[in-house]
Amino acid sequence: MTTTTDTPAYIRIAAALRERISNGDLPPRSALPPERELCLEYGVSRMTARKAFGVLESEGLVYKNATRGTFVAEPRVELRLGSFSQEVTRSGHQPGAELLWAEEQLAAPVVAHALGLDAGAPVHALRRLRRSDGEPLALETTYYPAELTPGLLSGNLAGSLWDELKDRYDITPGRTVANLEVVVLDEVASRRLATRPAAAGMQLIRRTYDTSGRCFEYASDLYRADRISLVIERSVNE
Amino acid sequence: MTTTTDTPAYIRIAAALRERISNGDLPPRSALPPERELCLEYGVSRMTARKAFGVLESEGLVYKNATRGTFVAEPRVELRLGSFSQEVTRSGHQPGAELLWAEEQLAAPVVAHALGLDAGAPVHALRRLRRSDGEPLALETTYYPAELTPGLLSGNLAGSLWDELKDRYDITPGRTVANLEVVVLDEVASRRLATRPAAAGMQLIRRTYDTSGRCFEYASDLYRADRISLVIERSVNE
Repeated sequence: MTTTTDTPAYIRIAAALRERISNGDLPPRSALPPERELCLEYGVSRMTARKAFGVLESEGLVYKNATRGTFVAEPRVELRLGSFSQEVTRSGHQPGAELLWAEEQLAAPVVAHALGLDAGAPVHALRRLRRSDGEPLALETTYYPAELTPGLLSGNLAGSLWDELKDRYDITPGRTVANLEVVVLDEVASRRLATRPAAAGMQLIRRTYDTSGRCFEYASDLYRADRISLVIERSVNE
Repeated sequence: MTTTTDTPAYIRIAAALRERISNGDLPPRSALPPERELCLEYGVSRMTARKAFGVLESEGLVYKNATRGTFVAEPRVELRLGSFSQEVTRSGHQPGAELLWAEEQLAAPVVAHALGLDAGAPVHALRRLRRSDGEPLALETTYYPAELTPGLLSGNLAGSLWDELKDRYDITPGRTVANLEVVVLDEVASRRLATRPAAAGMQLIRRTYDTSGRCFEYASDLYRADRISLVIERSVNE
């Protein structure tokens, strides 16, 4: 990142620290330099040094310990669009799923439309808290046509649903499409995801198609925005 | 979105209004129902109604006019990863690019690494403010190997750079890969993007490869998070 002379001092300091974190000079869980050291090094006030730390903290790069100072956070979990279980495993972490609720519902218009059903058709709906190494990362709410998935809700809902759908109903996911938007986490979501109130979240509205092109899954996922790096790839002339 | 009885009233009210906005009952630029009407309808206090509006405002779904009330915002601009000019055009808007600076630089380690250069090799670097229908949406900072792009900086930098690279240097983009993270916009970026200070931004660190697999472009893009819906697609067994 190029900074020019009109850049405020706290942004320049934050950029320098960010660089030291990303190049490994300040590894995860190491302590940041104390404020008084930054004040001397950059010739700034204590307030300015604190503001630089604040920038990094809101980016999720560092965290404060009330008594011991400011530390470098674990790197963000790198995920691609797809199966949460597979992606968390691929990035070297242990995935987890805690079922919050599961019920048969009458499809709301937006769900019915995505799944190619009439509004009010029965769907199996469930919400799960997804974890990586025990840390809550996402709230997943997923919907399946009830006619395609008889008995789903009394089965195993604590692992990969895609595996379950494959094993029990011979449904093979072929393609997944999502709209990603940044939203503000509401009180319920921020409590579940252990963020401060009104923290930023990534919302993914996902539709998954089987290999024949039928949409069998509609999902609304809310991720902690500060813990995720989403990898996106695209062929240019698709 | 299913809401249960433990959901706070302002979240239920926000969800109901969000539904009316998304199904077109409350179209862009229309006025939201006045607070006193929501108080009567839901049996809540003025404070609760205001909190529901606050949720929608921080999501970018509505905006406040100091004297005239609260209104439904224009829908988010739907983009895919790729050429900003092409994607904005595809979604029915007019793209724009304002050059902020352009210069030859010595590649920083992260840029050099992505472009397959030695650290300190010369690169052409430029920053542009990208607009959709005149509205600022993104700050794009892009880097190209100087050896591949002689004279680039004295050419036309106000349109599609991919078109320019194709026409002048016969470079054809084949594939683009990005890491997307949610960040806090600093003062400089939030001023350029006309957001409130410290608003959320989407940061895309992009690498673009030509059809032979060479990385010719490294970019760091900052988007206004409240105006963008990013469409992501993936084959499941890639």
